[in-house]
Amino acid sequence: MKSSFVILLALALLLPGCACRPPADTLTQTSTIDALLAGGYDGELASGELLRYGDLGIGTFDRLDGEMIVLDGRIYQVKADGRVYRPPGTLSTPFAAVVRFEPDEVVEISQGGDFAAITELLDSRIAEPNLFHAIRIQGRFAGMHTRSVPAQQKPYPPLAEVAEDQPEFVMTDISGTIVGFRCPAYVKGINVPGYHLHFLSDDRRHGGHILDFEIEEGMIEIDRCHRFLLIMPRDPAALQGLDLSRDRSAELEEVEK
Amino acid sequence: MKSSFVILLALALLLPGCACRPPADTLTQTSTIDALLAGGYDGELASGELLRYGDLGIGTFDRLDGEMIVLDGRIYQVKADGRVYRPPGTLSTPFAAVVRFEPDEVVEISQGGDFAAITELLDSRIAEPNLFHAIRIQGRFAGMHTRSVPAQQKPYPPLAEVAEDQPEFVMTDISGTIVGFRCPAYVKGINVPGYHLHFLSDDRRHGGHILDFEIEEGMIEIDRCHRFLLIMPRDPAALQGLDLSRDRSAELEEVEK
Repeated sequence: MKSSFVILLALALLLPGCACRPPADTLTQTSTIDALLAGGYDGELASGELLRYGDLGIGTFDRLDGEMIVLDGRIYQVKADGRVYRPPGTLSTPFAAVVRFEPDEVVEISQGGDFAAITELLDSRIAEPNLFHAIRIQGRFAGMHTRSVPAQQKPYPPLAEVAEDQPEFVMTDISGTIVGFRCPAYVKGINVPGYHLHFLSDDRRHGGHILDFEIEEGMIEIDRCHRFLLIMPRDPAALQGLDLSRDRSAELEEVEK
Repeated sequence: MKSSFVILLALALLLPGCACRPPADTLTQTSTIDALLAGGYDGELASGELLRYGDLGIGTFDRLDGEMIVLDGRIYQVKADGRVYRPPGTLSTPFAAVVRFEPDEVVEISQGGDFAAITELLDSRIAEPNLFHAIRIQGRFAGMHTRSVPAQQKPYPPLAEVAEDQPEFVMTDISGTIVGFRCPAYVKGINVPGYHLHFLSDDRRHGGHILDFEIEEGMIEIDRCHRFLLIMPRDPAALQGLDLSRDRSAELEEVEK
């Protein structure tokens, strides 16, 4: 009976892992960026559930309570007070995107540059802009400029209105990790076309949604993803009243910058 | 050792099924409608592979060789000659969408109507237009008007050009099944916003992409899906040269009608 015990153990170990875990090279996201722009801030998925879909990513939390960074399978919350928290896995998210990060390419940053210079460098190394790319940049930064957003009360104002008063943070001489995605143009309305990057310092005390930075040295890792899984709220009532048909590109640009 | 044999058998049966099969309520699609509009007709996924993701759906085949209907886990190909074929599972597809069909709602059609009337009826029963819906309508039709498309040679012309000379088929007094999807507005560029329906007759001898119909009696089944899995070609070279950033809504409308 010893061998059957071993087999049972193997079954117990293998089955839970394979039931729902998507394969590599899949960007999984909850809800859409346009739902967020429209003020859909109610959390729908427990943030801890995200780790079933990936170990690296970005997002926000229930009631728009700060910026999310998922790094090495841990979830961090940069609140509007500028501090970094480790939220309970039960704290829900209205919008987040993660991947099981397995880089396909590593690029050494040989000379420093700002947001524009680094995304230009990235563009030159991305062979297929019609696919999804997860980005991780470990580096030393002369400057890092981020923002966060405060938790909102109902009735929720649209994101562009919230962003008008967003708290911003300026860091100098700081080491940390940039985490985020480059999405293709055709996800307009669903996710952010182009680059969407968040930051977390090595000491886990600073971070946020990146507005600009100046990197001195670092290493870029790129994970090309050809699969995209969108998880909308299961309950139809959760989306009611949100107009997801009109073009919100202008609002998005305002919010991202 | 008998019990360990039973456990081994259970392992062998369970593991292949659970590894990649997505949960219910997931619309899975290969590539994007805009890639197809742009002339991306090279098959990327073996059509037989689609059955790992669902048993009901629609699409086309390698080189745009006809209209695909997936019904009860079987794949049918309505070619430009108007005939229905059962293609080998190795025949690839450049664009297709499937679900594991598990209807949430059944609507009896109490009075006849055309495409516009039936989609209006559907709209009235769909509580959340921001989710995805798979549609199956079993019925008796006074008239059914479909089209197919012929296989193309390289360099591939855009779909709007192919559709100008599309063979059309008019059937009268025919029983069969309408299969397709209602997609939310925000999938613009990725899939067809609104309704996209194909037809297959009960005798499996007629079908195609639906242009219009007149149903006498029938039953609608609706499967609400809150998850959407997009599978792009794994090989970046497959998409090179396709501009997926510009708005092709006008072309799509031309092609669908």
